[in-house]
Amino acid sequence: MDNAKLVISEARQWDRLMALAEIGAIVGDGVNRQALTALDRQARRLVIGWAAEIGASVSVDAAANLWFRVEGSDPAAAPVLTGSHMDTQPKGGRFDGIYGVIAGLEAIAALHDAGIVTRRPIEVVAWTNEEGCRFGIGCTGSMSWAGVHPTDFWDDRRDLAGVGYGKALAEHLAAEADIPRRALGGVPHAYIEAHIEQGPLLEAAGVDVGVVTGIQGSRWFTVTVQGESAHAGTSPVRGRKDALQDAMRAISALSGAMDDPADVLRFTVGHMVVLPNASNSVADHVTFSVDLRHPDGAFLTARGDAITGIVDAAMTTCTASVHEGFNAQPVVFAASVVDAIEAAAEAASVSHVRLASGAFHDAQFVSGVAPSGMIFVPSHKGISHNPAEFSSSAQLAAGTQVLANALLALAS
Amino acid sequence: MDNAKLVISEARQWDRLMALAEIGAIVGDGVNRQALTALDRQARRLVIGWAAEIGASVSVDAAANLWFRVEGSDPAAAPVLTGSHMDTQPKGGRFDGIYGVIAGLEAIAALHDAGIVTRRPIEVVAWTNEEGCRFGIGCTGSMSWAGVHPTDFWDDRRDLAGVGYGKALAEHLAAEADIPRRALGGVPHAYIEAHIEQGPLLEAAGVDVGVVTGIQGSRWFTVTVQGESAHAGTSPVRGRKDALQDAMRAISALSGAMDDPADVLRFTVGHMVVLPNASNSVADHVTFSVDLRHPDGAFLTARGDAITGIVDAAMTTCTASVHEGFNAQPVVFAASVVDAIEAAAEAASVSHVRLASGAFHDAQFVSGVAPSGMIFVPSHKGISHNPAEFSSSAQLAAGTQVLANALLALAS
Repeated sequence: MDNAKLVISEARQWDRLMALAEIGAIVGDGVNRQALTALDRQARRLVIGWAAEIGASVSVDAAANLWFRVEGSDPAAAPVLTGSHMDTQPKGGRFDGIYGVIAGLEAIAALHDAGIVTRRPIEVVAWTNEEGCRFGIGCTGSMSWAGVHPTDFWDDRRDLAGVGYGKALAEHLAAEADIPRRALGGVPHAYIEAHIEQGPLLEAAGVDVGVVTGIQGSRWFTVTVQGESAHAGTSPVRGRKDALQDAMRAISALSGAMDDPADVLRFTVGHMVVLPNASNSVADHVTFSVDLRHPDGAFLTARGDAITGIVDAAMTTCTASVHEGFNAQPVVFAASVVDAIEAAAEAASVSHVRLASGAFHDAQFVSGVAPSGMIFVPSHKGISHNPAEFSSSAQLAAGTQVLANALLALAS
Repeated sequence: MDNAKLVISEARQWDRLMALAEIGAIVGDGVNRQALTALDRQARRLVIGWAAEIGASVSVDAAANLWFRVEGSDPAAAPVLTGSHMDTQPKGGRFDGIYGVIAGLEAIAALHDAGIVTRRPIEVVAWTNEEGCRFGIGCTGSMSWAGVHPTDFWDDRRDLAGVGYGKALAEHLAAEADIPRRALGGVPHAYIEAHIEQGPLLEAAGVDVGVVTGIQGSRWFTVTVQGESAHAGTSPVRGRKDALQDAMRAISALSGAMDDPADVLRFTVGHMVVLPNASNSVADHVTFSVDLRHPDGAFLTARGDAITGIVDAAMTTCTASVHEGFNAQPVVFAASVVDAIEAAAEAASVSHVRLASGAFHDAQFVSGVAPSGMIFVPSHKGISHNPAEFSSSAQLAAGTQVLANALLALAS
């Protein structure tokens, strides 16, 4: 290994992140660059240009995942993979996702600058549509690549403008028809994803990087309550089928049933739509989301499977249905990758601590195919999915140095 | 009186209602023709043309209320006034409001056809913006006319597109600059408003018209709950300031406190907005409406005044504020007008029953200025604020015949 020669450029990485933050910039230093949009494509072209500077080859697969590859000395060796995603939440920040892509690019640039050729190829990937905000489903790129679902599985999922995922994906691929196409899937030697923590633990502990041991499981549900509209002034309360009242009872019952004295279970109702949503009309239709997460698979399965029964029991005059749209089981990362990251941090004299991820990531699906791990860098106050999301240039550089060292070790 | 000669035309009235239903038509026989829009103005021009056919003069006042006037034999006599409104809910029907305007027009057309000149002038008015859906406040035309608030009182109320009431009103008046302007206000001899019942009582009783004795009071509140956004996966539930959870607690507490064993109090939460409204983000901001109605003023005042305390007490981690946007006290209609309507129904051999109105109407504000009353016609299944809203041509004609007879009596 040539760790001593391998030095990443903090300035280059920061400048690239700031250049990307201008594509979809919103007030307060935020970014709104949703998946498979023109802004997404604009950002990709910028990154492709940087990859070309060091001679990395570029390709795109049928799920629109974007790939950069630097060859190794052994053409037959399985590649070491790194990356993350480039899409953001509607009111997102400058680092969630894109940091992992730029960190990967910086790592291979540093290898290039140092004149180091690894034995294994190194690939950097930008997974499509991790956030899930546009079509109500995330990680479609990594799920498609990992064989969890085919690329047309979400064709009918629509965004707020009514555009289906299938149509958006086809349009995107047509716009990138000049980029060489690569087959979906593969068996990398290992995968490392660098990401901001999106939680407060590293900052509070004053530690440079988190060596991620696994990701808690996530289940997403949509609950629909159907009632009957009526005039707020003329219809007696007793005879109403008020969808908002029954939805409220359901949320109240769920909140009670999902209470966890250990405060490990994460139960969130964050999305709610009321129809017709007029102050003087009784609501006839309410939908709300349930986001449920826990690191223990059996616990998550039991609580999630109870939701339909709890919702049904809460209905007094309306009817309800529960649809599960996303189910990511908890993941424990491969010891080989976790150990390699820890060793890389030691070698780089970067302080580190092992921790689990509360947020889900593409690594959750990649880990079903290849030994995987993640590197976290501190998030100021744990703020994420928000324009105020912040990690310092030095913090981001420390994470990238660890990534570069770990990639070099795994690719040697 | 010339009751025997005074015969309204059922066909003409129905044809006019159906022609107006095409202006803003939506699927399912519905109408979306909101106040102070181009569609509103298009509908007004059609009605102006019909009024011109019988020589009625037309004018508009500073609140954009549209007036038609037929002179009487005594130029010094105070006019008898009738009318209603022409705007609809976003998913409204073909009869709410517009029926009262067309019925008034039909009544003066029938007088014209019969060659009857009354002693008092008769005026037909189309009040501006009764529904309240566009700017979140209704009855602005009749309130302005009655001196409850000046026309610029709601200038800063904005519609979903961000257009203020003041700007919309100014644009509307500019577009009707060719119509003679009339002063706001006046002291009519009496006011009668014909309207669909918007409730199920008349149909259930098999009665042709309702002689309305008064209108229950309405108070509208907007409750805002402010919390703090957080990542659904990384933020422990215990430390959250979840605006949706506290809003749910507030609605639950209000629902309990507003429960009325007599089932006369109408408590409705029909409008709710959650921000950022993302399934994987804890909500930091929720607003919801409270629509509260009761025929007893003291009862309504006591329950309405309790809302702020109940909401505040329900907050666990968030802060809340309560804003009252509308307060219409209960009204008891003038015996002189109620009796005149009842006598007119008798004279027309139309079956009738006295009842109170659950919905508010422009008559609620006009009654503060002039002796007022209302005529209700049956609503199929009580459905209103909905494309399925329906009253038959014969039912509408019976109501209009009673109106014509009552106007003739009051104007003689």
